[in-house]
Amino acid sequence: MKYNRIVIDAMGGDHAPQEIIKGAVMACKESKTIQCIFVGEENSIMDMLLQEKLSKDRWHVVPSTDVIGMEEDPKTAIEEKPNSSIVVAAKLIRDGKGDALVSAGSTGATVMACSREIPRMASIERGVIATVFPAMKQKREDPGISIILDIGATLHCTVPQLVSFAIMGIHYLQEVMAIPNPRVGLLNIGTEETKGHAVLKETNKTLREMPSINFIGNIEGKDIMRGVADVIVTEGYIGNIALKSIEGMAELSVQTGKRIWKKNLLSKAGLLMLSPVLKKLKRRLDYSEYGGAPILGFKKLIIKAHGRSKAKAIMNAILLAELSAQSDLVKSMEKSMKEFYMRMFDQ
Amino acid sequence: MKYNRIVIDAMGGDHAPQEIIKGAVMACKESKTIQCIFVGEENSIMDMLLQEKLSKDRWHVVPSTDVIGMEEDPKTAIEEKPNSSIVVAAKLIRDGKGDALVSAGSTGATVMACSREIPRMASIERGVIATVFPAMKQKREDPGISIILDIGATLHCTVPQLVSFAIMGIHYLQEVMAIPNPRVGLLNIGTEETKGHAVLKETNKTLREMPSINFIGNIEGKDIMRGVADVIVTEGYIGNIALKSIEGMAELSVQTGKRIWKKNLLSKAGLLMLSPVLKKLKRRLDYSEYGGAPILGFKKLIIKAHGRSKAKAIMNAILLAELSAQSDLVKSMEKSMKEFYMRMFDQ
Repeated sequence: MKYNRIVIDAMGGDHAPQEIIKGAVMACKESKTIQCIFVGEENSIMDMLLQEKLSKDRWHVVPSTDVIGMEEDPKTAIEEKPNSSIVVAAKLIRDGKGDALVSAGSTGATVMACSREIPRMASIERGVIATVFPAMKQKREDPGISIILDIGATLHCTVPQLVSFAIMGIHYLQEVMAIPNPRVGLLNIGTEETKGHAVLKETNKTLREMPSINFIGNIEGKDIMRGVADVIVTEGYIGNIALKSIEGMAELSVQTGKRIWKKNLLSKAGLLMLSPVLKKLKRRLDYSEYGGAPILGFKKLIIKAHGRSKAKAIMNAILLAELSAQSDLVKSMEKSMKEFYMRMFDQ
Repeated sequence: MKYNRIVIDAMGGDHAPQEIIKGAVMACKESKTIQCIFVGEENSIMDMLLQEKLSKDRWHVVPSTDVIGMEEDPKTAIEEKPNSSIVVAAKLIRDGKGDALVSAGSTGATVMACSREIPRMASIERGVIATVFPAMKQKREDPGISIILDIGATLHCTVPQLVSFAIMGIHYLQEVMAIPNPRVGLLNIGTEETKGHAVLKETNKTLREMPSINFIGNIEGKDIMRGVADVIVTEGYIGNIALKSIEGMAELSVQTGKRIWKKNLLSKAGLLMLSPVLKKLKRRLDYSEYGGAPILGFKKLIIKAHGRSKAKAIMNAILLAELSAQSDLVKSMEKSMKEFYMRMFDQ
């Protein structure tokens, strides 16, 4: 049987390795074509796995001796811990021993380990973390999720970088999330084509002229959560601040709601009735619940699960990773990037 | 009696001139020291005012013949309509005929008319629109409002510009909003001093070294609504996108809340009970309700009321304008700016 081999950083994340292993076992039960390659502390991982009734050809362990903590400086840690789980995992991908990588460890260390070890796609200078989050549906058929990239790796971008974000976002949504013909929006200070600085104006013009891109034009900050665009293209500096602003507002909404209700509701019964509603609202607003963030631009897909992930979130991340491994994601991204560059040279 | 003379663009805004006049009359009843100088279509304003029992020395009308609409291009409109209400109003301030200006008309046209006619404070290159919005209270004594500047006029800023935003924000909160010793935060992609591009790093260093500024360091997007800083300093590009992102999230919160409640609540009675709560939540999240935005950096204060303002919002804007006219706002801002430049030259 031909398996999709998912390399899993078993030591990364707040609940590693227990919840990581549990999530992987759950993923293996969901999909019969997954093979898990766990990287981490061999004995404890083996102990946990032998308790599960998971066929031996569905998993193996590659030992590593170190772990990079969430609070460590990524650059220093990567240099000082060449045998840490994330570095070993990235090397397995580099050496063709796996088809995709999942980690719930430090984001900085994950990006840096991958940047050092895994080759990038043709014409891509740097990997990009995309964030998938829930958005309003404008129409019934809208997906209800959007993807925003970049959110911090590249503070200021060139036109080709921003175009590459559009292309990578489109293919990820199409091929992994099964969203047809995603709408692309460029985050700017106004919707008019003439808004923003020179790079944004030029990117707007370039995206407009690319027939293969369903470009809806500039969008404003308030459009992010409105679901008017499926792929939101932005410089890392802006994406980071916009997304965190939204996070803060979500927090305030939940708190304000709670306070107002506490003040106004007459009976304890009323409050009790509302408590599950509040929880649901909070979950709906917490975009970190919406699965892992894909790191794009490398020859293989990396899924960065949230550090707080428990088994279910890990399972989802692994299933996403398998979907991407089954698709022609990287090939189709590279093909579109080539078309873009060909157009540039033709002009 | 010495009045504070507030120049009022009677023709600007969705509900002009009726609601503007009504709001001004309300303000005059609140504060006995206000004198209103209405600029607009003389006959209709006179008709409205003569119906009100407002002493004749409390108001007069300066006629104008044109109005700049909300959708007009500010630059073209200002050039083609030199006798529009906002241009005439700005000229009255320039000529010393008024102590502060209030307009609910087009933001672009207001800023441009003021920039052309009203002298700027010493060492200030360009006016800045500040937005006052509700924020969480970290402690009981926190003000529960914050001010963010810039939100769009200056996309990319120099270090002295960002420092001037801090200084103007501090004095506005201290002298007009009566908030003692405001905490200043610099919006950035992380809290560490080394985060962000060169201008942000240098601004962080400069603000840290200024003993007269209560600088709490870099803040992130999620801190905007948390109320950790009273004055939030940012480039216009970022401020615009962050604030609009928050607006979109607020909208989504209210919509999500409504949908979840509709789905879950068992009885119509439950929904009815919640309807005032929802309205309150919406109002709390809608920062445009929180009075006018001061335009700072000129020799006189301009209050830009929201275009949708009705009488009560206009009254609040006029009362704010009077507070600023009574204070030494411009003088104290200029003094602090001078200290900042002296420090720079001393180093």
